[in-house]
Amino acid sequence: MANPGLEDQGTIDLAEYILRRLIQLGVGTVHGVPGDYNLTILDYIKPLGLTWAGNANELNAGYASDGYGRIKGIAAMITSFGVGELSAINAIGGAFAEKSPVVHLVGTAPQSAQKTKACVHHTLGNGDYRAFPEMNKYVTVAQANLTDAESAPGLVDAALKACILHSQPVYIQLPTNLVKAQVRAPTTPIDLSHPGYDEGYENKVLDALVEKLQSAKKPVILMDGLTARFHINEVINEFVRKTGFPTLSTPFGKGIVNENLPNYQGSYDGAVGDESTKQQIDDADLILNFGPLYSDVNAIGFSAVPRADVTVVFETHAVKFGPEPADPKGRAIQIKSFMTKLLKRLETTQLPKIQPFTRGASVSPNLLKALKPAADGDPLKQDEFWLRMSKYLKPGDLLLTEAGTSFAGANTFILPENTILLNSCLWLSIGYTLPALQGSALAQRELRKEGHKEGTRSSGRAILFIGDGSLQMSVQGISDIIRNRIDATIVVINNDGYTVERVLHGFEESYNEIQPWRNTLAPAFFGAPENDPNYPVITAQVRNWGELWSVWERKDVQAGKGLAMIEIFMNWADAPKLLVEVAAYVANRNKAMEA
Amino acid sequence: MANPGLEDQGTIDLAEYILRRLIQLGVGTVHGVPGDYNLTILDYIKPLGLTWAGNANELNAGYASDGYGRIKGIAAMITSFGVGELSAINAIGGAFAEKSPVVHLVGTAPQSAQKTKACVHHTLGNGDYRAFPEMNKYVTVAQANLTDAESAPGLVDAALKACILHSQPVYIQLPTNLVKAQVRAPTTPIDLSHPGYDEGYENKVLDALVEKLQSAKKPVILMDGLTARFHINEVINEFVRKTGFPTLSTPFGKGIVNENLPNYQGSYDGAVGDESTKQQIDDADLILNFGPLYSDVNAIGFSAVPRADVTVVFETHAVKFGPEPADPKGRAIQIKSFMTKLLKRLETTQLPKIQPFTRGASVSPNLLKALKPAADGDPLKQDEFWLRMSKYLKPGDLLLTEAGTSFAGANTFILPENTILLNSCLWLSIGYTLPALQGSALAQRELRKEGHKEGTRSSGRAILFIGDGSLQMSVQGISDIIRNRIDATIVVINNDGYTVERVLHGFEESYNEIQPWRNTLAPAFFGAPENDPNYPVITAQVRNWGELWSVWERKDVQAGKGLAMIEIFMNWADAPKLLVEVAAYVANRNKAMEA
Repeated sequence: MANPGLEDQGTIDLAEYILRRLIQLGVGTVHGVPGDYNLTILDYIKPLGLTWAGNANELNAGYASDGYGRIKGIAAMITSFGVGELSAINAIGGAFAEKSPVVHLVGTAPQSAQKTKACVHHTLGNGDYRAFPEMNKYVTVAQANLTDAESAPGLVDAALKACILHSQPVYIQLPTNLVKAQVRAPTTPIDLSHPGYDEGYENKVLDALVEKLQSAKKPVILMDGLTARFHINEVINEFVRKTGFPTLSTPFGKGIVNENLPNYQGSYDGAVGDESTKQQIDDADLILNFGPLYSDVNAIGFSAVPRADVTVVFETHAVKFGPEPADPKGRAIQIKSFMTKLLKRLETTQLPKIQPFTRGASVSPNLLKALKPAADGDPLKQDEFWLRMSKYLKPGDLLLTEAGTSFAGANTFILPENTILLNSCLWLSIGYTLPALQGSALAQRELRKEGHKEGTRSSGRAILFIGDGSLQMSVQGISDIIRNRIDATIVVINNDGYTVERVLHGFEESYNEIQPWRNTLAPAFFGAPENDPNYPVITAQVRNWGELWSVWERKDVQAGKGLAMIEIFMNWADAPKLLVEVAAYVANRNKAMEA
Repeated sequence: MANPGLEDQGTIDLAEYILRRLIQLGVGTVHGVPGDYNLTILDYIKPLGLTWAGNANELNAGYASDGYGRIKGIAAMITSFGVGELSAINAIGGAFAEKSPVVHLVGTAPQSAQKTKACVHHTLGNGDYRAFPEMNKYVTVAQANLTDAESAPGLVDAALKACILHSQPVYIQLPTNLVKAQVRAPTTPIDLSHPGYDEGYENKVLDALVEKLQSAKKPVILMDGLTARFHINEVINEFVRKTGFPTLSTPFGKGIVNENLPNYQGSYDGAVGDESTKQQIDDADLILNFGPLYSDVNAIGFSAVPRADVTVVFETHAVKFGPEPADPKGRAIQIKSFMTKLLKRLETTQLPKIQPFTRGASVSPNLLKALKPAADGDPLKQDEFWLRMSKYLKPGDLLLTEAGTSFAGANTFILPENTILLNSCLWLSIGYTLPALQGSALAQRELRKEGHKEGTRSSGRAILFIGDGSLQMSVQGISDIIRNRIDATIVVINNDGYTVERVLHGFEESYNEIQPWRNTLAPAFFGAPENDPNYPVITAQVRNWGELWSVWERKDVQAGKGLAMIEIFMNWADAPKLLVEVAAYVANRNKAMEA
């Protein structure tokens, strides 16, 4: 195999072509599981300088790729057709829904077997080889079925471009007989520009926006999670700082804005959140809504969807005013260029001086101040735990919060600067975050090694908060963490079952119970090293405040090096206020819908 | 909720209707994972006398349902739409390919949300609620989207009938707003007769077959795995006994014929099996091929597909002669009725007296006899291990063998009578058998409790042989085994990675390595009881023959009560002869196909 650094090497194998394109786009590690239809593709990984993560199963490989893609802006996974790709398809669905750019490369049976509808293993036995790509059409934005050396490079490039432009998964089928097909080595990078990009249009939109900013009396910035897909966090924060406009985060958008900024006002939780915050959003005459995802969960039963008539929506390729549809001529902007120009314009533009909101009593810093001191022996309560944990978070931490109590509780965190918070607000497949911890922490490590600015702002710590029920779904993710020597702290909230489901329905029903595990045995079971100074392993159990403090104040826990597994016991019936209130709100709405 | 035993109770809730139909068809336990769109369905489980298995994740619930369905002839699983159903879809694909009758009941969002394309959690965010049922069309034989109380019972009945007739999975969507919709309670059982069933035709086919049997000079019975879907093992064995015809098993069909019968001749492994066996199949003038599945793996690279011109194929609703297509008039037989009549006819029919085959040197009993005694300290070798393990198998054991070395090795087992052997020969999704062990052993336990004949022939033991790589895919299945207090023996063949893949390609490549686990910690990690006399837990590690004997001769291991986790270390490069030869055969064929 040729050195990928060289300029023009004539022809190369098709498998190498695909992997070199991935490297050009920023992939450093490939996730997946080996299988007989992809083994010859795997031969190319190491010689090209890529790392093979080698996951314990495909669903976890998919979740890990999603996490990796959110950090690096591109991820790649390799599976075998039929069994492997279908095991991963729920993760691909999640990446599609929440827009993580994952390239799913599937090793398929040789074309001769496909043409003769041969009953080879991993098929459905009915000769239908198209079933799998057809299924994948619903969860990917582009599909490339590679059938010959001539068309393959173009199809690969088009799929990869779609992956980046949409920040959503794509699907590439490589039959075993084409792995070594000779194709021309890539000599130019893939053109990643949006086909509708129009600088004149971008400038016009910019002018219109500046006008709106100048005339606003009660502007608000509402930061949502898809803003992270812009990959311009610094620019976004500079905009927040420069305007001084009151700024709120959705649950999905938490962590994007530096919470230390004086105009950061906390979380916007619609009907169930802080009342004075809601009032001020209701009174706003301009809502700058970055990267919105108006799901029932993120928009709190749709009660937090901002009023269209006062809202400007910022997306990767569009800035939309009010209830207007997308540009009828299909013209697009480029958000990085747009925001950079906007910042420049603000240097010479007089903006209205806006007073920060009056913070309500139920905004996190006020809630924390109001907490009565807890005695060491007191049991841990959900509504206090998350607020108090804030002081153990460090600038640059990578935080993941699993669906359910952790997601809801972490919404009250008071975050230090440069933290990244990953969660799920639409797909909400429980178990997602454990493998996503592996993938995202690995991506952060790569960014650090590559000297990337985002990487160097990292603390090196990656901390997951996950419930005991969710942990069971994808627990092999711990094995993948150890195998890849990821520095990770896993905080298991053990509350004896699916508390989020209890809150929704069947509070005391046995179907919301789970098999109780001895969670702190996990590192030993999954083969963590026992005396490796480069990868220390910590396990601890916590049942009250005193134990919590003594664990979190340990130097090795604070350092976050190696693997820490901290099991925190909470009452099965206890849940964060947000979760209880959202559940009640959604349940009522559902009842109305069912009537 | 009404008592399901009563005759006519007027109207009942739709969810109850579905579950009562499942009970009527033989479902005793429902597998699945709770989720907010199915919680209200779960409320009906316990009051109707059903058991909720409560799996750790949906893929495992699907695998467990497949195993349960193979034993009981019907299985049911409940998931949440989107995330839950897609997590399970690989298992549903396997049930489709290998014909296990699984009813997949999916709790969906209320119809009002679907109609308005609401962006509720577990959707793709694009309002496409039909994506999931469209994806499921490829892996189920019927889909019922329940939309109103009037049509729902008919749609449910039709789907369940398709499930039974095809012995393949079906898909039912129940929106939360229809769970309590009032429908008429079922007063008659579902009509399960094949629409094309024609007794006159059945008799004509019978006559033709009897004629063929009488005129055969060199007949052979070739028993394949889909025969198990007939659920008439005793009748099949009586046929084998009465005819005295030489009888062979495919890898997928192993265990169906009593291997103690004098005319049982061992396994048929086509091009790589015993040569004298192959010669005699090649010379046959009549091959009675029961329940065939001609996949590359089961038919050994298609080298073991019998010659069409001398073959009679027995299926659930057809007996086909030679290369003839299915009956052009669409007429069907019913295999149980057909075989029962056939046995009756054989009482008065003179059949040719056929000499048994001369058994070749590589037939298991001969291989076992030829083995040199092993010293206690000698390491275990694959080609000796499986033969020697035969003596520890008991009549009535339920055996499962995972894809890879276990599948290939177990093909040389010498089985006592009434054993059931479950494996995968087409879908081959690694990790399948661990949850399938839970499901199938649970189904066997139910049959015993119900006093069913198949159940009473059971030893009460369920033994899985699985490799260390496969175990990692679905390891939570151990938790489900413990939670449901399944008596199970798990034999982990620890050979340091994916040996089956090594044999295929990349023998020493790091991508075929896995994270080494401390496998015998599994029971403790997954919360097995520590001192429960009703559920004893055994763990052991075995590195040589002496350790193997001493473990298997323990009374508690022999009893198979509770959970035993036995880890057997073998050399990473060692593989059963069948696996090596099939891999070489398939690799050569693939190369030819790729040329």
